[in-house]
Amino acid sequence: MKELSQPRLYVALVHHPVLDKNGDTIASAITNLDLHDISRAAKTYGVKSFYIVTPIVDQQELVKRIIAHWVTGFGAQYNPKPQQALNLIKLQASLDDTISDICRIERNAPKTIVTSARHSRGTINYRQCRKMIKNGKPYLLNFGTAWGLADEIISSADYFLDPITGQTLYKHLSVRSAAAIILDRLLGVDEIRE
Amino acid sequence: MKELSQPRLYVALVHHPVLDKNGDTIASAITNLDLHDISRAAKTYGVKSFYIVTPIVDQQELVKRIIAHWVTGFGAQYNPKPQQALNLIKLQASLDDTISDICRIERNAPKTIVTSARHSRGTINYRQCRKMIKNGKPYLLNFGTAWGLADEIISSADYFLDPITGQTLYKHLSVRSAAAIILDRLLGVDEIRE
Repeated sequence: MKELSQPRLYVALVHHPVLDKNGDTIASAITNLDLHDISRAAKTYGVKSFYIVTPIVDQQELVKRIIAHWVTGFGAQYNPKPQQALNLIKLQASLDDTISDICRIERNAPKTIVTSARHSRGTINYRQCRKMIKNGKPYLLNFGTAWGLADEIISSADYFLDPITGQTLYKHLSVRSAAAIILDRLLGVDEIRE
Repeated sequence: MKELSQPRLYVALVHHPVLDKNGDTIASAITNLDLHDISRAAKTYGVKSFYIVTPIVDQQELVKRIIAHWVTGFGAQYNPKPQQALNLIKLQASLDDTISDICRIERNAPKTIVTSARHSRGTINYRQCRKMIKNGKPYLLNFGTAWGLADEIISSADYFLDPITGQTLYKHLSVRSAAAIILDRLLGVDEIRE
């Protein structure tokens, strides 16, 4: 019987379509530490899979080489901890392919969740989202690299999470930091939230 | 008049004394993205200064070059946002020097806070710490690079924060992710905590 209280949350780090600093749609480059930091956070918080989304074959090869180094190469002997986290990574060419993969696993299409500082209509807060994802259904949380997810991804999402706000008006967290904070807000064990 | 409710929180990223994977005390190398990610999180959450602590002169020079690139060099024209965050960085050779610098600014010695997965005696939880740092007094939150802060730093700290726990027993967040999550737990504006 499916455990209803355990979230079935998937995470995607999207490299296309995302925006550059001028607002044009681009495919961004893979950043080594994105793979490490976000896979470790995903592993910590019990995320089901961490999808790296890029249509560029050379970039997919780069991801495979990074994973191979830590999972079967020298890095696996030097430090076995990253291996457990990098095993969560799956490569996909597009967000549609990612959703199809989750459909195949879950036999159910995931609802998609995005965060964006640029859109505020109909956002849900972290308390609502934290509760929602415990309903036993699959969810896909999408993060954009570069200057953020393209509008077509944002407008087609099922849910918009509130932007992360600190004590200031400065809103330029790295995607690594934003992913860590959001996973903690949604899945962290913290006496404040219980 | 001093605003009592605004935390006077300082953050230090310690490169010496820290542990290597065998538990020996070392001085770790500067990681470029530590400076970027943690300074941006510090800026977002209203941290007063972000200290990079290393006794190694070559490493101090590297930090200065990274900052110069983004604050006055090419990076400043290409993207001015990192500049605002990197301006929070101050270099110190030791944690003692860091505490002295805060004493000079605040005319009051900061209480020190550490997190460590290796120690659990007398920890305070995030709710307690979030409340405590609003008392108008200065606090210094220390993060260790490599395999974590050396025991001498941990045992001399005033407060031990609970370790970050997710849904699993995996506890290998990067220091960048851990810093982001802890700043959010202590300073984030989140309806869950209010």
